[in-house]
Amino acid sequence: MRHRLAGSVGISLLAVALLAQNGPAAAGEKVAAEEEIQYRQSVMVVLGRARAQLTAMVKGETPFDAANATRIANFMVELASRTPAGFGPGTEKGAPTKADLKIWKEPAKYKTANDAMITAVGKLPAAAKSKDSLKNALGDAGKTCKSCHDDFKLVEARN
Amino acid sequence: MRHRLAGSVGISLLAVALLAQNGPAAAGEKVAAEEEIQYRQSVMVVLGRARAQLTAMVKGETPFDAANATRIANFMVELASRTPAGFGPGTEKGAPTKADLKIWKEPAKYKTANDAMITAVGKLPAAAKSKDSLKNALGDAGKTCKSCHDDFKLVEARN
Repeated sequence: MRHRLAGSVGISLLAVALLAQNGPAAAGEKVAAEEEIQYRQSVMVVLGRARAQLTAMVKGETPFDAANATRIANFMVELASRTPAGFGPGTEKGAPTKADLKIWKEPAKYKTANDAMITAVGKLPAAAKSKDSLKNALGDAGKTCKSCHDDFKLVEARN
Repeated sequence: MRHRLAGSVGISLLAVALLAQNGPAAAGEKVAAEEEIQYRQSVMVVLGRARAQLTAMVKGETPFDAANATRIANFMVELASRTPAGFGPGTEKGAPTKADLKIWKEPAKYKTANDAMITAVGKLPAAAKSKDSLKNALGDAGKTCKSCHDDFKLVEARN
């Protein structure tokens, strides 16, 4: 009995020690994951807005202006380059997210889809010289958005 | 009585007509406000991340690289230029927000504070040529962030 109790106390002390060691770190990791999720969602929101601005131009809803379109396209290139960073290890959960867990389970497949978007967005600045070429390049880029969302974006947010 | 009933029916028809006219529009406005609030928050989050990347460089936490710093600084210029758009009329509420209602009650004062940030961020690309000048310019920009947040950003989000 004494032996058992000692064992039990030993396990409790071990649990406290582990809690002391991992508790704050684990909490810190949760904050980091939350921040990363917020960051990647923010990048996507701003990217979507910039894309909508170019789409409005090629649709004639707003005046087409090559200099303005090029500026927005370059902005999108920078935003696109930031999309992989937000999906790093440990950011699978921590806040409501529509990111499918497949992103972390099939990282090579996800990278291929994400890279295709980055490549297609990378063609927008040069294409922004004319309305027609921009329209085509936006269409190509849009396909890479849709393809990646079809495969890796959930319809409903999960926790 | 017939008169009253006719009046009542008339008012009901008017109500239905008003609902038909304003219902979807009002709902649409709520969605628009929500979207705008999400957009402005996203711009701020990405701006904050970009700023943190430059801060890490001037603090020596990451290697200083003038080309990289200039690229991030230019990205911040574009983000800063997008901050006023998210605070337009009708975006006072519609989603949890830390934006103080003073922004819409004292638009001239808010514009002055926002413009000061845009001007200070506008000096970052040229300053990014050297670590020391970037450090100074970041400090100046940071003061404009803080000043505007002190005056116009609530500590707790409101609905």
